[in-house]
Amino acid sequence: MSELKNDRFLRALLKQPVDRTPIWIMRQAGRYLPEYRATREKAGDFMTLCSTPDLACEVTLQPLERFDLDAAILFSDILTVPDAMGLGLYFEEGEGPKFERPVRTEKDIKNLPVPDPEDELGYVMDAVRTIRRELNGSVPLIGFSGSPWTLATYMVEGGSSKTFSTTKTMAFEQPKLAHLLLSKISESVVSYLNAQVAAGAQALMIFDTWGGSLSPQMYKEFSLHYMRDIVSKLTRENDGRKVPVILFTKGGGQWLSDIADTGCDALGLDWTTDIALARRQVGDRVALQGNMDPTTLCASPDIIRQEAAKILKAYGNGSGHVFNLGHGITPDINPEHVKTLVDSVHELSAQYHK
Amino acid sequence: MSELKNDRFLRALLKQPVDRTPIWIMRQAGRYLPEYRATREKAGDFMTLCSTPDLACEVTLQPLERFDLDAAILFSDILTVPDAMGLGLYFEEGEGPKFERPVRTEKDIKNLPVPDPEDELGYVMDAVRTIRRELNGSVPLIGFSGSPWTLATYMVEGGSSKTFSTTKTMAFEQPKLAHLLLSKISESVVSYLNAQVAAGAQALMIFDTWGGSLSPQMYKEFSLHYMRDIVSKLTRENDGRKVPVILFTKGGGQWLSDIADTGCDALGLDWTTDIALARRQVGDRVALQGNMDPTTLCASPDIIRQEAAKILKAYGNGSGHVFNLGHGITPDINPEHVKTLVDSVHELSAQYHK
Repeated sequence: MSELKNDRFLRALLKQPVDRTPIWIMRQAGRYLPEYRATREKAGDFMTLCSTPDLACEVTLQPLERFDLDAAILFSDILTVPDAMGLGLYFEEGEGPKFERPVRTEKDIKNLPVPDPEDELGYVMDAVRTIRRELNGSVPLIGFSGSPWTLATYMVEGGSSKTFSTTKTMAFEQPKLAHLLLSKISESVVSYLNAQVAAGAQALMIFDTWGGSLSPQMYKEFSLHYMRDIVSKLTRENDGRKVPVILFTKGGGQWLSDIADTGCDALGLDWTTDIALARRQVGDRVALQGNMDPTTLCASPDIIRQEAAKILKAYGNGSGHVFNLGHGITPDINPEHVKTLVDSVHELSAQYHK
Repeated sequence: MSELKNDRFLRALLKQPVDRTPIWIMRQAGRYLPEYRATREKAGDFMTLCSTPDLACEVTLQPLERFDLDAAILFSDILTVPDAMGLGLYFEEGEGPKFERPVRTEKDIKNLPVPDPEDELGYVMDAVRTIRRELNGSVPLIGFSGSPWTLATYMVEGGSSKTFSTTKTMAFEQPKLAHLLLSKISESVVSYLNAQVAAGAQALMIFDTWGGSLSPQMYKEFSLHYMRDIVSKLTRENDGRKVPVILFTKGGGQWLSDIADTGCDALGLDWTTDIALARRQVGDRVALQGNMDPTTLCASPDIIRQEAAKILKAYGNGSGHVFNLGHGITPDINPEHVKTLVDSVHELSAQYHK
């Protein structure tokens, strides 16, 4: 593989010196880009877009052509894993993801297979290989997965949920069964992420989108425990470089110190956390990624620049910060505003890396 | 007014000794009760239920007839205030609250009246008086309001929102205008809550349902600042007793120490906060209310009792704890499970008050 031309992102995750604070944006290949909407239209539906490596590659690269981003992220969906476990993922217009066969009983869970990442999920690995080839060493490629708890909520509820009451009731009433499910998902996630690294992913991120819906005690038992287990089993090297792992629990601002102790390299922060306080809490253990409120991008370029400056200043001097939003970019954002953000972060951050 | 027969709730909020930990439940007069659904049916629609004092009184008292609760809370809605400011509140089936005339421009905001609580909101004060009379001193009555930030989100967005992008954009782009709006709402809330106290409310709670959607800096400037201002202007005595004030920012677990410094008497906690850590953070400044995950009530009575025991133990010895859920009870809950919770809290808490 060719040498990386821009390795700021990987270096910042490992707290190695950088010249500028790197930036990428969650859901950077998304509906706010007209070229994304065109490819999506061409694909017909979302799952075809995910499962056609050339199209997944095309949308992965689109934001990098527009903006000076420091990382690419595989275009895919966190629900590819449960889909490969046989649950039958489908999307109903305006309704979010659903599963034809949710898992609820002991039999359902015992029968769940651990998918072969080069078989049922081969299209994802093909996408990773295609994207790596097309990136040609320009910036690193991030692979990702949902966290076991987050995936379990979709698998048990059968789709999105406001309260996760079926999943939580399983955790309360049948904790052994919930743990069996989470163990199976964890095993699948480990094999999925390691296959992504083998296919070329240079960093990994685990999205624990719904961990923040749990009480502290249940978070530790049903979400964090499994992320720690996964981190311990991941391939941590690729092309002779360390593969950093980022854990992101949305709404997890009260548990940063616990997440930092999992062995991961970096924490994703949502925008409800003061990044200066977060840095003091985690000390030298991990890097931090975040944490601008995505709605800031609705404001004018001047405001976007000011708000970026505040976050950079709050993090302060030295490496260990990857700039990002605190959650995915929304479809209503003007792409020009993203350009302002990316350029502002690069310009304004030089002073913190002297 | 007759003397209170059960003043545990008021005493706990002021950290005075009690024999048992008091308990009430957010949205205790709600759709999980068949008798509530019957009254709601009789009323025809939600706003008629809110605005007919005898019906509001009827549903307020229903949970107290079933369960050994230590407080009643006025049956009303946080959006009565913006409705009285002329925005035209209406409910569309399955869509949540909406306003006919959202406020967006300087002219909209300058023209907003501060409603007279005994005129446009007289039906609420009549409900308070009716409920106080019917309670006949059995337990104290809680009055309430939404926080200025929370009310502003509905007023600017014109209803519910996922991202609050219009309101936040106003805060970013036109902070003076946002502050003018929040000041007008605060003035209305002060007059509304003081009228509730004059009508008989014995404790007050401010629901900051959407404060947790803000960054720490914006939370302090656009939400907490106004709650502090309101607290400083409230009537704090009724019938010769102090009227305690509870502030509840859902998702505010990272800002407890700041909230405790507002001059309020108690903090509401959602279930993502460890109540033992919260107690250490706030020290002697305030009492704590909460904080069971509402989905716990989907589990069996044994589990409900165990989980109640954990929260009581985590708070530990002494007064200053009002048991509650961390958010409103949902319509799917079996009322028998509520009985289990209420009785368990009373039984299991005696040991912490010796």
